Amino acid sequence: MSENLKIVIVGGVAGGASTAARCRRLSETAEIHLFERNSYISFANCGMPYYISGVISDRKEMNVQSIAGMEKRYRVNVRCGCEVTSIDRENKTITYTEIESGTQAHQQYDKLVLSPGAEIFRPPLPGGDNPRVMSLRNLEDMDRIKLAAEKYADKPAIVIGGGYIGLEMAESLRERGMEVMLVELADQVFVAADREMAAPLHKELRKHGIDLRLRTSLTSVKENGDELEVTLNDGSKARCGMVIMAVGVRPEVKLAKEAGIEIGGLGGIAVNENMQTSDPDIYAVGDAVEVTNFVTKTKALIPLAGPANRQGRIAADNIFGRKSTYKGTQGTSVCKIFDQTIAMTGANEKQLKKLGIPYEKIYVHPLNHAGYYPGATPVHLKLLFDSCDGRVLGAQAVGLKGIEKRIDVIAVAIRAGMTAEDLSELELSYAPPYGSAKDPVNFAGFVANNVVIGDMDVCHTDEILELDEERQILLDVRTPKEIEAGTLPGATAIPVDQLRDRIDELDKGKDVLVSCRMGLRGYIATKILNQNGFKARNYTGGYLTYQQATADK
Amino acid sequence: MSENLKIVIVGGVAGGASTAARCRRLSETAEIHLFERNSYISFANCGMPYYISGVISDRKEMNVQSIAGMEKRYRVNVRCGCEVTSIDRENKTITYTEIESGTQAHQQYDKLVLSPGAEIFRPPLPGGDNPRVMSLRNLEDMDRIKLAAEKYADKPAIVIGGGYIGLEMAESLRERGMEVMLVELADQVFVAADREMAAPLHKELRKHGIDLRLRTSLTSVKENGDELEVTLNDGSKARCGMVIMAVGVRPEVKLAKEAGIEIGGLGGIAVNENMQTSDPDIYAVGDAVEVTNFVTKTKALIPLAGPANRQGRIAADNIFGRKSTYKGTQGTSVCKIFDQTIAMTGANEKQLKKLGIPYEKIYVHPLNHAGYYPGATPVHLKLLFDSCDGRVLGAQAVGLKGIEKRIDVIAVAIRAGMTAEDLSELELSYAPPYGSAKDPVNFAGFVANNVVIGDMDVCHTDEILELDEERQILLDVRTPKEIEAGTLPGATAIPVDQLRDRIDELDKGKDVLVSCRMGLRGYIATKILNQNGFKARNYTGGYLTYQQATADK
Repeated sequence: MSENLKIVIVGGVAGGASTAARCRRLSETAEIHLFERNSYISFANCGMPYYISGVISDRKEMNVQSIAGMEKRYRVNVRCGCEVTSIDRENKTITYTEIESGTQAHQQYDKLVLSPGAEIFRPPLPGGDNPRVMSLRNLEDMDRIKLAAEKYADKPAIVIGGGYIGLEMAESLRERGMEVMLVELADQVFVAADREMAAPLHKELRKHGIDLRLRTSLTSVKENGDELEVTLNDGSKARCGMVIMAVGVRPEVKLAKEAGIEIGGLGGIAVNENMQTSDPDIYAVGDAVEVTNFVTKTKALIPLAGPANRQGRIAADNIFGRKSTYKGTQGTSVCKIFDQTIAMTGANEKQLKKLGIPYEKIYVHPLNHAGYYPGATPVHLKLLFDSCDGRVLGAQAVGLKGIEKRIDVIAVAIRAGMTAEDLSELELSYAPPYGSAKDPVNFAGFVANNVVIGDMDVCHTDEILELDEERQILLDVRTPKEIEAGTLPGATAIPVDQLRDRIDELDKGKDVLVSCRMGLRGYIATKILNQNGFKARNYTGGYLTYQQATADK
Repeated sequence: MSENLKIVIVGGVAGGASTAARCRRLSETAEIHLFERNSYISFANCGMPYYISGVISDRKEMNVQSIAGMEKRYRVNVRCGCEVTSIDRENKTITYTEIESGTQAHQQYDKLVLSPGAEIFRPPLPGGDNPRVMSLRNLEDMDRIKLAAEKYADKPAIVIGGGYIGLEMAESLRERGMEVMLVELADQVFVAADREMAAPLHKELRKHGIDLRLRTSLTSVKENGDELEVTLNDGSKARCGMVIMAVGVRPEVKLAKEAGIEIGGLGGIAVNENMQTSDPDIYAVGDAVEVTNFVTKTKALIPLAGPANRQGRIAADNIFGRKSTYKGTQGTSVCKIFDQTIAMTGANEKQLKKLGIPYEKIYVHPLNHAGYYPGATPVHLKLLFDSCDGRVLGAQAVGLKGIEKRIDVIAVAIRAGMTAEDLSELELSYAPPYGSAKDPVNFAGFVANNVVIGDMDVCHTDEILELDEERQILLDVRTPKEIEAGTLPGATAIPVDQLRDRIDELDKGKDVLVSCRMGLRGYIATKILNQNGFKARNYTGGYLTYQQATADK
């Protein structure tokens, strides 16, 4: 029966194209129709900023899979330039319009797969519809932006929004030599990460000449001669040649909604773990659907290419009677900002706080490979974990090298339900050019596990900033030379190697908050103090974390 | 009670130094004595080849932890230049000799930790004791070799042994501009990996001007004027300025053996999962002990720095009554050979065969990041797995970039007991400069899982090389242009995109072995054939694997 199935897929990019290819591999006899409103399918959407910057020079690279190739290899009936406008669920028929001719037609289906993606959110504002205010969703947008960047090369460009696309666009235009202002409403860019982890990106953006405006939004745009004049919410004005709007995306659900398919609480298409919508003959995949967050088990909108591909495969499996299930999205992601890389997986601290999930956190700053091998640079790593059972809940890392490797390792650990102790025991590859005998991930695991098993109590920046001198001593155990270059406000200084001899200088009646450069000497000092009858806690991540946490405040 | 423990540690490098530091963190009052026969502790042994090559220029970098630092920070009584010569287990006393003065003395212990490491194996051969025949174990060796490399800079150097040290030494001396011959008894270098995975290294070594001699050994050395003349087992002779012997290491067990401590079947010190020897008051860690292979559960000698560090920590924990256990060694490792990286984790095919463990294998050759982003290069990845339940048993990868990241990811998966299907579902970080929406690890998981669930039968190089034309058809589904540049002997050519139309050209009575460039088109062709009533199998890894497997034969 399943052999002669009519399968109709709406949307020909990541999720839709994966579904089509997988369906054909599962059945040589199924009839597969792929509808795509653009004139192309399966394009390199994540590559668009790099084509605009010139890093990718050949426009042909942007088409990952040609229509002819898809038709030949997978015998898929590809209908580009066709917009599906309605679904008649009762008669299992969709209606579509050939965009160029305006002709309407119908197509029957046995199983329908929706992969419409997400649309760019454009907040309504005066002048926001000016054609020089642009967004980046498809290849036409890309070409338009590239043309504008050439035309207005000698004028500033303003990018609104500091998420993936905003960051990559700011970098791309800057790499082209343009003056770039990046405007972000939050107090940080890359809001998928916690603020202190994004702080090095702020520095990097400024270092590369980007005029970064945090806590700022766009209120209006107007033409002024051959320029645009924008007004920001702080009342300031700026002139530019073009504006890129990249404040976010939202699921494209119009078609599904009008067909009476259930929409979830966050505004995405609701699906079960088989990627089935409320209509069992209709599946939905990709950026348009609500997924379950793998860690928090709550519903979420997480538009990522990898999950979209996997969901497409799973929808196809289920169409052909294979009970494959989607187990949720972790939000593993990575972004390059000039020379810096930021990556993350699992829940961030903001989410855990909001959901009231109990957690603890530690920070480490180990080198990406053996310090004696030239070119080692720090991996700034934050680990979030369940303070009772040690289960890893999330991780974020930022730095120049070896960042995404550590996040990928922790992503697998989270998927496997591993604890901080498990991380400490992982056997990872080591040779001096690649890592250390104790990898940064092991190291984070050791530190977190010390907290879990009660070997080391930690404190955090908020407590350091609101020191209660009546009850607490803040102790900096770095060397005098290090302290000369800056220390924590209110800190007493005793180098760790003198601590045993000078321990009587400290008031045993007070709690000691210990800090060093990155937490290692602080740990040793905390152990010495605790074993000498003090109540001591280690400021996790030390002065390096302090600097990240207090930047741009 | 444990607070006043006398702890004696023999050996001050990776395992010993880790034990000492951990013991102090666990107890401020324990008495810790660290004996080391060299004049330094905790040195950068993995960095030595890079100091010889000049990549590491500062000799001071080679000392990771100074004696004074260790004494101050951890209050460890460090006795360098002292060789422990015997253990009196009854009286819990060791005897040691101060090497410089020759004075003997004793030290009592409550708990003893042995971390003697492994000694260089030097096969006895005529002239093998010539001082210009050198090995690399410690900093004195390193200095000696560096001096020799300066003195004999204009003469060839011969390196015997193609393991880690041999490969790194060959590279180091070559990087100094010397002519280098590398002699290896096996038919491959880096025997920790399977032969076909090491093949790209052979090419790389030759490309960089190394005279690689496989299946060759050294039979004698003699001085001839100011040169050494070596004779090889093929009867050929060669002249050189120096010889590096790096054919392997073996556990240093003399001290333990003479004390009546149990030695395992492979010649290493036998320990339980708490790193305790047959004497419960004596622990042993590092390269001298026999470990359990995490995957095969058999005993093994796996000298690696990461495991040594972890074992030291575990010994310390157990000394202080914490029941921490060592769960076995996976053999995760990585080696840089000029521009190539090879890495592996878990069991290799040779081990699985030898132990009679049932397995299947697949090869994939995906790019390290999005193909449209400049600079993408292939990750040649081999995955070994249980063909019944899909459990991952091992992986090896070789290529220019992103190699060790994929092996680290699979190392975690093995540790978690994951299957091929689990690999396919991993959510790894993706952006065009770092990976693909389907990461190479996902891709390997898909392919392997297809085999496990019976979706795709595979065949391997041995069958391709011994094609039975009576019963089998070998089908190359690449394009004519690709085939022009070389194909498999005896192959029939039908491009995959023409296969549906030309399927009648094939004899249904025969099994079809399908091959393409790297296995993807072969998979599609296999599916088409199977669904049309053929018995078809896909040659896993395709022509790229064929080239690796038949190189240097």
